[in-house]
Amino acid sequence: MIAVLRWGHRAVRDERITSHVCLVARAFGADKVIVSGENASESVESTKKIIENWGGKFEVEYTKNWRKVLDEWEGKIIHLTMYGEQLQDKIAQLRTKKDLLVVVGSQKVPPELYHRAAYNISVTTQPHSEVAALAVFLHEYFEGKELGKEFPNAKVKIKPNPRGKSFER
Amino acid sequence: MIAVLRWGHRAVRDERITSHVCLVARAFGADKVIVSGENASESVESTKKIIENWGGKFEVEYTKNWRKVLDEWEGKIIHLTMYGEQLQDKIAQLRTKKDLLVVVGSQKVPPELYHRAAYNISVTTQPHSEVAALAVFLHEYFEGKELGKEFPNAKVKIKPNPRGKSFER
Repeated sequence: MIAVLRWGHRAVRDERITSHVCLVARAFGADKVIVSGENASESVESTKKIIENWGGKFEVEYTKNWRKVLDEWEGKIIHLTMYGEQLQDKIAQLRTKKDLLVVVGSQKVPPELYHRAAYNISVTTQPHSEVAALAVFLHEYFEGKELGKEFPNAKVKIKPNPRGKSFER
Repeated sequence: MIAVLRWGHRAVRDERITSHVCLVARAFGADKVIVSGENASESVESTKKIIENWGGKFEVEYTKNWRKVLDEWEGKIIHLTMYGEQLQDKIAQLRTKKDLLVVVGSQKVPPELYHRAAYNISVTTQPHSEVAALAVFLHEYFEGKELGKEFPNAKVKIKPNPRGKSFER
């Protein structure tokens, strides 16, 4: 089980970024995303619609209590932060773990999170985007195999096209 | 020269996503980002501040005229779209090209863009995020070497830390 925790969502301000985090978690092979923080119903509902149309067994949840998520997690907790150890130095070791909770922050993350994580991991040591950090982390974790992942029970499925839009049905 | 064109920016609505696109372009090794569409001064200015503090030779520009950017580009144009050919099937071929303009859309992209691109490329065939698509595209193009890229003349530089925040000066 690979789950993603979107920590510290702020209503309105973070809506689109949180939606991107949820969709990236799904598209790049995670099993579940949990959003914590302020009301995130828009991001949660838009993700549910994507699952309904595009298939797969992905789950999306909202919680006010992120500490409970950490307390109950039985696998490793990985916190993605630009201050952490570098992805390229740790990924081989992380691939040997089978149950990961991957935490991505929004607003400033409390020291508690750095301490509760088994690994704090940086994807480049430059400021960029939690959406990008999550995508590249999962892409490396799954060694690129997630790019061809099948999503069962899809109502919509794209047929790759060099010059336009095609669907399989 | 690897440049990124953020196509079709919408003021206010896209501000944060466009900023993430700009910062991802920089962090993952592109040389330049060009934002086209509505007023993007907030994203452009926030990117300039990052360059000033975090170093590197990255450039950020705004244009109203995206067709001129395409007209004047002498290398290949790559359009990232969920409908395109799959990244994993094309990346080896794309790595042999040295001047790329990588286009990422925002709102719905016109058919013209699909036709002017030498390659339409999909990063997974699932809906997710232009921020993630750009990051994974550049990560694959540079074969992960961008993760350790140095940014000269930085005022701030992170020293990777397993459990907190450290800076080199």
